[in-house]
Amino acid sequence: MGSAAPLSLLLLSAVLLLSSVSGSTARYTPDWKSLDARPLPSWYDQSKFGIFIHWGVFSVPSFGSEWFWWNWKQNSSSYVSFMTKNYPPGFEYAEFAPGFKAEFWDADEWAEIFEASGAKYIVFTSKHHEGFTNWGSPTSWNWNSVDNGPHRDIVGELATAVRKRKSVHFGLYHSLFEWFHPLYLSDKASNFTKQDFVSSKVMPEFYDLVTRYKPELIWSDGDWEAPDTYWNSTEFLAWLYNDSPVKDVIVVNDRWGQGCYCKHGGYYNCADKYTPTEPPKHKWEKCNSMDKYSWGYRRNMKFSDVLDLPAIIQDFVYTVALGGNYLLNIGPASDGKIPIVFEERLRSIGAWLKINGEAIYGTKPWRLSTENGTVPVWYTSTDSAVYAIFLTNPGQYSFQLFTPVTSEKTVVTLLGIPDPLKWAPLHSSGLVMLLPELPYTPAQAWVIKMQGVA
Amino acid sequence: MGSAAPLSLLLLSAVLLLSSVSGSTARYTPDWKSLDARPLPSWYDQSKFGIFIHWGVFSVPSFGSEWFWWNWKQNSSSYVSFMTKNYPPGFEYAEFAPGFKAEFWDADEWAEIFEASGAKYIVFTSKHHEGFTNWGSPTSWNWNSVDNGPHRDIVGELATAVRKRKSVHFGLYHSLFEWFHPLYLSDKASNFTKQDFVSSKVMPEFYDLVTRYKPELIWSDGDWEAPDTYWNSTEFLAWLYNDSPVKDVIVVNDRWGQGCYCKHGGYYNCADKYTPTEPPKHKWEKCNSMDKYSWGYRRNMKFSDVLDLPAIIQDFVYTVALGGNYLLNIGPASDGKIPIVFEERLRSIGAWLKINGEAIYGTKPWRLSTENGTVPVWYTSTDSAVYAIFLTNPGQYSFQLFTPVTSEKTVVTLLGIPDPLKWAPLHSSGLVMLLPELPYTPAQAWVIKMQGVA
Amino acid sequence: MGSAAPLSLLLLSAVLLLSSVSGSTARYTPDWKSLDARPLPSWYDQSKFGIFIHWGVFSVPSFGSEWFWWNWKQNSSSYVSFMTKNYPPGFEYAEFAPGFKAEFWDADEWAEIFEASGAKYIVFTSKHHEGFTNWGSPTSWNWNSVDNGPHRDIVGELATAVRKRKSVHFGLYHSLFEWFHPLYLSDKASNFTKQDFVSSKVMPEFYDLVTRYKPELIWSDGDWEAPDTYWNSTEFLAWLYNDSPVKDVIVVNDRWGQGCYCKHGGYYNCADKYTPTEPPKHKWEKCNSMDKYSWGYRRNMKFSDVLDLPAIIQDFVYTVALGGNYLLNIGPASDGKIPIVFEERLRSIGAWLKINGEAIYGTKPWRLSTENGTVPVWYTSTDSAVYAIFLTNPGQYSFQLFTPVTSEKTVVTLLGIPDPLKWAPLHSSGLVMLLPELPYTPAQAWVIKMQGVA
Amino acid sequence: MGSAAPLSLLLLSAVLLLSSVSGSTARYTPDWKSLDARPLPSWYDQSKFGIFIHWGVFSVPSFGSEWFWWNWKQNSSSYVSFMTKNYPPGFEYAEFAPGFKAEFWDADEWAEIFEASGAKYIVFTSKHHEGFTNWGSPTSWNWNSVDNGPHRDIVGELATAVRKRKSVHFGLYHSLFEWFHPLYLSDKASNFTKQDFVSSKVMPEFYDLVTRYKPELIWSDGDWEAPDTYWNSTEFLAWLYNDSPVKDVIVVNDRWGQGCYCKHGGYYNCADKYTPTEPPKHKWEKCNSMDKYSWGYRRNMKFSDVLDLPAIIQDFVYTVALGGNYLLNIGPASDGKIPIVFEERLRSIGAWLKINGEAIYGTKPWRLSTENGTVPVWYTSTDSAVYAIFLTNPGQYSFQLFTPVTSEKTVVTLLGIPDPLKWAPLHSSGLVMLLPELPYTPAQAWVIKMQGVA
Repeated sequence: MGSAAPLSLLLLSAVLLLSSVSGSTARYTPDWKSLDARPLPSWYDQSKFGIFIHWGVFSVPSFGSEWFWWNWKQNSSSYVSFMTKNYPPGFEYAEFAPGFKAEFWDADEWAEIFEASGAKYIVFTSKHHEGFTNWGSPTSWNWNSVDNGPHRDIVGELATAVRKRKSVHFGLYHSLFEWFHPLYLSDKASNFTKQDFVSSKVMPEFYDLVTRYKPELIWSDGDWEAPDTYWNSTEFLAWLYNDSPVKDVIVVNDRWGQGCYCKHGGYYNCADKYTPTEPPKHKWEKCNSMDKYSWGYRRNMKFSDVLDLPAIIQDFVYTVALGGNYLLNIGPASDGKIPIVFEERLRSIGAWLKINGEAIYGTKPWRLSTENGTVPVWYTSTDSAVYAIFLTNPGQYSFQLFTPVTSEKTVVTLLGIPDPLKWAPLHSSGLVMLLPELPYTPAQAWVIKMQGVA
Repeated sequence: MGSAAPLSLLLLSAVLLLSSVSGSTARYTPDWKSLDARPLPSWYDQSKFGIFIHWGVFSVPSFGSEWFWWNWKQNSSSYVSFMTKNYPPGFEYAEFAPGFKAEFWDADEWAEIFEASGAKYIVFTSKHHEGFTNWGSPTSWNWNSVDNGPHRDIVGELATAVRKRKSVHFGLYHSLFEWFHPLYLSDKASNFTKQDFVSSKVMPEFYDLVTRYKPELIWSDGDWEAPDTYWNSTEFLAWLYNDSPVKDVIVVNDRWGQGCYCKHGGYYNCADKYTPTEPPKHKWEKCNSMDKYSWGYRRNMKFSDVLDLPAIIQDFVYTVALGGNYLLNIGPASDGKIPIVFEERLRSIGAWLKINGEAIYGTKPWRLSTENGTVPVWYTSTDSAVYAIFLTNPGQYSFQLFTPVTSEKTVVTLLGIPDPLKWAPLHSSGLVMLLPELPYTPAQAWVIKMQGVA
Repeated sequence: MGSAAPLSLLLLSAVLLLSSVSGSTARYTPDWKSLDARPLPSWYDQSKFGIFIHWGVFSVPSFGSEWFWWNWKQNSSSYVSFMTKNYPPGFEYAEFAPGFKAEFWDADEWAEIFEASGAKYIVFTSKHHEGFTNWGSPTSWNWNSVDNGPHRDIVGELATAVRKRKSVHFGLYHSLFEWFHPLYLSDKASNFTKQDFVSSKVMPEFYDLVTRYKPELIWSDGDWEAPDTYWNSTEFLAWLYNDSPVKDVIVVNDRWGQGCYCKHGGYYNCADKYTPTEPPKHKWEKCNSMDKYSWGYRRNMKFSDVLDLPAIIQDFVYTVALGGNYLLNIGPASDGKIPIVFEERLRSIGAWLKINGEAIYGTKPWRLSTENGTVPVWYTSTDSAVYAIFLTNPGQYSFQLFTPVTSEKTVVTLLGIPDPLKWAPLHSSGLVMLLPELPYTPAQAWVIKMQGVA
Repeated sequence: MGSAAPLSLLLLSAVLLLSSVSGSTARYTPDWKSLDARPLPSWYDQSKFGIFIHWGVFSVPSFGSEWFWWNWKQNSSSYVSFMTKNYPPGFEYAEFAPGFKAEFWDADEWAEIFEASGAKYIVFTSKHHEGFTNWGSPTSWNWNSVDNGPHRDIVGELATAVRKRKSVHFGLYHSLFEWFHPLYLSDKASNFTKQDFVSSKVMPEFYDLVTRYKPELIWSDGDWEAPDTYWNSTEFLAWLYNDSPVKDVIVVNDRWGQGCYCKHGGYYNCADKYTPTEPPKHKWEKCNSMDKYSWGYRRNMKFSDVLDLPAIIQDFVYTVALGGNYLLNIGPASDGKIPIVFEERLRSIGAWLKINGEAIYGTKPWRLSTENGTVPVWYTSTDSAVYAIFLTNPGQYSFQLFTPVTSEKTVVTLLGIPDPLKWAPLHSSGLVMLLPELPYTPAQAWVIKMQGVA
């Protein structure tokens, strides 16, 4: 092979293709300074509540967590023992794929649940660290949901169903690395001086995903072992912001290479389940899972492992009060059904939001996030109102808030109750009000709305 | 993606690697003129008899032929009906892979049979048109015999076992195209103006195969839809002949692109089961399958579909008499067993060659390939003898050959019988001899050896 | 076979065995008059709340209902379509059995849930109409949970686990008929003039179940196609009451043959989900299923198909107020897990009973079952108190009951609140009381306890 | 259950049924003296050659032998290791049944092969020791070929196909005991004082088999652990000979209880592969298997384990010369195909019989069974001829036999060659003849026919 290598390469053709696209006036350059300066499309901050969905081949063994393959191969004893007890020797992960049947999967059924929950966006695993693509990726032949298992374009069907529900934005999770992909392992062994995996797998799939399914959000993950230069992240984002079909609406997170998170990209996820104690300066999102110990569905989940509704609402309210979005995860079963305990939580959140949503959607953090009055409250605000959310039944009728500064125009209501509450100002700041009997809600959270306060 | 593409690519690294290899004196250039001029390593012509083995995922449905997938997807009715009858709707080919268990496979057992057959080389399907690689190819992740099905390095185990038997050379079949590989289909749709499939799949696998397993023969196939320039064939061959670890021993065939066969490469296979009527000028090989209608094992093979021993011997003798090698195919079952009817044929050929092999191995065509004397005979020759092989029991003791020119030094024997035969010259040319009772052989073929004839 | 048939038969040996058992003083005779006169062991009426569990091979397809096999074979279209879509042609029900793996099944985990629910007995399907026995029945060879599927003595493991929890009684459901058992079908074709099925299957299994596992309750079912004389019911019950190891504690229901239900046997179930409007004279039980449309687990259960907690509590309270026991059904998955939505319901019932159980356990119907005062209430009573249970939040503090006749000694409390309520008598009968804020409970049901009322 | 047991039992109904059948004149009584006196229907002795077929669930693991289950459970190491290596822990034998698919099974294809082999009867395993019935036995519910696995009436389809070929009689193998049937094990534990297994399983199935399929031969087996009185054998045979629909044609063997074989019943099998050295006085049969080490198909059969054609012919000829029938066994694969190596042997036997059958069919042993003349020969005879069969090529033209006494009318031929041989009498007895060149046959066996000798 002494002579020249064949010229045609996926990336090159992509480049050529793009050069013919007429760049508009202001273009982003592939560096963090330029990219980080892009304003976040407003739909995202207004949405506040999203649903995260982990579904893949890991849903077949459905044991332990979506890190099943990794844990097993790291000889984690419960995983090894699960395999030893239930499968013949030599059974390998690839053989789980045919069991991913999705026989009861109806994307419209999911979309209806998502909408009923009050979520305004979803983030779906287009591909997790296992590398199995939930769409027919040409560079993941026979290891994708069309060639194997469900034999369906899962990403496509879901996009269509979600878009029928106008209120819900469609986002995709995508893992950059794949635990056991031989090209990735080989790049890694080269100390990431090679980029074979990125050029022949990551980039083609990213372009394919975006051009085919036009996601409004990309939730990048699996970046941490290599720098963003390895992942080609700034080039990809520049294309995404300048030339992609979703350039005006796309939102991304911050996992684009070692050291990027909490620092570069779109909004910040920082670590999983990141929970700041002060409102961060940059738009952020807390992702949390209904199953405390797994993102993917696992059949050995215990009742006590599931977050109950009040705990979810509390976490959600806290997050919004500090300026974050709340991305709540569920793991469907391999047959396509969302476990009903998850569905019930989602519908209950939706029921609570139906009454109390105005304290959440489109709000901003108030000048104070929380205070401990009669009971602890969390504040949110809009241009016209301040909301105090409390998650403890005060067990009494008189209720005090210390921070709001009232005026003559102040009107106080309890969401869900039409009549205004009687109230009186407290000395210097704050007010005391008379609560009615609290309306029954399994969420155990209520909202006081104050208009005309400062 | 306006800026430069990542530089590291498999091919490029290969190129860089190679440039550091000190080129010896005479090097082949990547063009047919130079490559075709390379002399064929002598072991090949001397070997005469090889065994072809088709094994892969097609051995799991084991129905129809190794073109199962293709025929099914072309809606061939018997295939569609087989699937409909035996599998749930939506079952796809990838799901057959876990059934490729090879649970009884012992490479040494195969190697013993190969040696017992008298074969001097084997050609094993490293990858057939289905694309499943029988070794752990990094560019065929989860669609190879290590990640899936057998979970074994089949090519590697077989290479080791065959090499323990000194007398048998190790060759590999390799299909250039893959019926349903998305990158191939996309290149094809571009009218082969793109080479993504070649650069990210074919070339990496070819280099991997050669450097890992050091085959002495590459039996290329699946070339016919695209020109050799698409396949990068001359570059690959130049590397193979100049710089590969098998550069001195490697033998290849002639399927390197549309229009190549019977014209370029190493020896010529021309079409499957090619059977010339005159001795070709270029070294050739006839491949034939014991199962008349399939190369892979199919469970619906009928008794009458199997070549019987006399038919095989006849075909073999004919081929050698015309200067060809004979590559006889068997299809093992997915559990790793060679059907015993095939094994019995192979051992019977070996038994026949034990007595008559000197008329085969290392011979050259004689000045005449065949004549119809007492019964039809086929001639082969070495420097010191001429062999007349006949496959019809003449049913009488006097036996005539018309072409050999005898001399005083002429000695005539029937292989397997120590004592020379009595003979007398015929007028102008030829001789008549007295046959003993023919030794029993299920092959129904005997050899007259003549020394000192012209 | 002109001579005598072999004498040894299962039943005969059973008879001989029994004749050696010393009959005590008063024995039941095998007729309804005698059997119906037996007093019901007291534990049953005191228990009030039981859990019904449907688990079997039907849990493998887990579609439609536990009548899967029947419905499919009756050509019910959704079942036929499920099979057509997901299984190869010719797949039969027996082939589901290996999929009944119970790999996550831990009987102690179940028992802990049962206890936490406040249930005082369980009724488990030892064998449903499909005929698959959840213990190693010798007369159901290879169609039982030891030879096939789980390879475990399910009835045995469960009995042991439940008995560790002292508070829960162990009962077994048993179907007399088996939809497709050839001997049953043949008896039926004879218009039940033959009893081959009963003598070779039903009776041996009944004796085996009772002597091995000593259930305290037998929930008979599947009787309706044939008279009790066919089923040998009175003979079996006479043995059960006179000579079996559980003769002193055993409780049975009323499904012992066509025309028996609501008329003969132990307590009465009458029809499934039977709901009388007046307190029946005979002890009865309402069985109901959390899944409105199935007793066995079905993966296609929808959220809206699941009874919510208030609906369950309401049904339960109504049943107890009318003198019934409440047997609430759940269907575990084939892997042995109880769907968490069911577990959550059970634990919530338990939490409610922890506070309000004294209005349920060991009570009797009061002289009036229900009245519509401030809100509707249901009455229960013990020797020392009357309980008024209400399931609607009155939304006001003054609460009236019209029927209780108070006295000077009358004390009124709300269960869960230590301090007595203030109350005043109403004219002629009844009282009005002042309610505190109702304690939070997702059950939405509260109990007023009145001591010293008539 | 103090009162009488239900009267209706399978046997009783059978008895009642039979009492209405009009007995003809001479009836057999259920004792060996009477039964042994029955003459064997003549078709059997005339047939000489039968095919034995072992097919069942053991054909699914297809490893070791048809005793797979037993050997595995006895902890035979190769079986345990096969299971450990290939199946998950806890996998039990019943789970093999769904793998018995018979997807390529065509009873007519089998029947054509049987006829082509020259066999005049077949013996097919209706039920082997594993207890799986190859027909829809009502007393083997879900453990039979209709409810499970193939979902076909195998015995029925085969009977129909074989009967279309007029020349082949249809026989059934039937195992009395079942290794692991709980009722059998319980009877055995009672030292066979109970007969529950016989009354509820063996007898009903025997009657069902005979009345449904009307076999002409019953090859009883699995009798050896219990006396014939336990098995109810004489009663069954009396019914079979007196009243069954096959009373005039039925042939049975001698395995009817401990101590019976070689002593009672129809013809004698004695031990498996029994090979007497003198012609026995009672009609006998040698059963032998093409696979030296198994009757059922096993995938781990080696080439050297298969009897070659000359060995089979030799064994067959020896058996016939000593008055026996030869029952040659094959084991089909679970997919319904007869391994082609077996088919080839069968067709070759048929080819040999086509020429030499007159020395076999309908013959009787001659006054001498064998002698060692020029080469060893075996004698058979009819009223009009004596046949000397030799299996060694004498390698010379003059051939001597010492025993036949010639006369003037003596005519000597070699079967397959029309012209009579030249011969001359030897002193006192015997003759010498001139052989032609022996016709080619892979069977390596030839027959000299002598008419007019004594």
